[in-house]
Amino acid sequence: MMHQHYESCIEACNDCANACDMCAAACLQEDDVKMMARCIALDIDCAQLCRLAAAMMARGSEAAKLVCEACVSLCDMCAEECGKHQMQHCQECAAACRKCAAECRQMASA
Amino acid sequence: MMHQHYESCIEACNDCANACDMCAAACLQEDDVKMMARCIALDIDCAQLCRLAAAMMARGSEAAKLVCEACVSLCDMCAEECGKHQMQHCQECAAACRKCAAECRQMASA
Amino acid sequence: MMHQHYESCIEACNDCANACDMCAAACLQEDDVKMMARCIALDIDCAQLCRLAAAMMARGSEAAKLVCEACVSLCDMCAEECGKHQMQHCQECAAACRKCAAECRQMASA
Amino acid sequence: MMHQHYESCIEACNDCANACDMCAAACLQEDDVKMMARCIALDIDCAQLCRLAAAMMARGSEAAKLVCEACVSLCDMCAEECGKHQMQHCQECAAACRKCAAECRQMASA
Repeated sequence: MMHQHYESCIEACNDCANACDMCAAACLQEDDVKMMARCIALDIDCAQLCRLAAAMMARGSEAAKLVCEACVSLCDMCAEECGKHQMQHCQECAAACRKCAAECRQMASA
Repeated sequence: MMHQHYESCIEACNDCANACDMCAAACLQEDDVKMMARCIALDIDCAQLCRLAAAMMARGSEAAKLVCEACVSLCDMCAEECGKHQMQHCQECAAACRKCAAECRQMASA
Repeated sequence: MMHQHYESCIEACNDCANACDMCAAACLQEDDVKMMARCIALDIDCAQLCRLAAAMMARGSEAAKLVCEACVSLCDMCAEECGKHQMQHCQECAAACRKCAAECRQMASA
Repeated sequence: MMHQHYESCIEACNDCANACDMCAAACLQEDDVKMMARCIALDIDCAQLCRLAAAMMARGSEAAKLVCEACVSLCDMCAEECGKHQMQHCQECAAACRKCAAECRQMASA
């Protein structure tokens, strides 16, 4: 399978990773950081896994589906947590996670 | 769940990642690199996923099991491919992958 | 310093990482893999460093400049090596590396 | 240069990455998370850069010194910040960062 097939999923993974990293940093600057602790933890996890998924798809790796499957679950978790908070960085992150989960779900089942 | 529970699995993941990265570089210096192409590709994938698994366990992440499950499959694949080649770096890498797969399997089912 | 300032550099880093990962995988499928060994090694290094730079800029990290400085040097090395080979994946990778080096150079000196 | 030369530096980088990831997660569980915000941010940065340095040394990369140099600076920053806090996870992390900085400094100047 060639990387061209993955183009939109790679883009969704990179966008999601950026949104998660931005959200983690912004959460750390909130007044009530304690309330954001789970959001920060999931953001960091999700950003790292999404960047790995992008790398493996770009290499056309035979293990790319495996990692995208894990991405679906983690993006779903992160979207749910971020979705609970009204800050713009959380809402944007939740949207990026949902989009990435949808792309990875499709990719993993292709 | 605390990271202390993960200590031996984190060590196995870091050892496996080191062995995979070393094997990839050594394969690239072999006379017949072409024969080692799949080994190199799986080594790089496996090293990256193992380092991520170690990071997530060290953080006591709620998604650590998810990533360790993916690690089991990829370590099994990498161990099988490396096991076909007689070079010391491949045999050592295969052994590290098998150990890491066993640790991650136990961790993911705990 | 906010991540918005980094937007074009983050994009250049992600694009470069994708191009490097794609190039590494394509080089491994070439008939004369041996000739591509250094290209593959630098591609993998450069992809990993660029993805880290993107992550650190997205988090507005105080160490982002430090990593972007290292990125400049590695992107220059990778661009030079890839530029020696006529395959499309190498030429595209060289171009992405040059663009990323320029963005990181500007970012690191800002 | 072969990876064997790097063995103690690779180990210091992996140990430092583990300590930083553990410290970040523990800081997020502290009562006064706000006070730990910079520590968390530097921990995550330092963990990621140390894992990359380990990977590049394990591959005997020609860019390993470059990344180890960046590691010295970031480990120094992280050690200083962690050293300000009396919690065991911060003190252990500061010690691991200092050891890693020393190993990377030696490696980068070899």
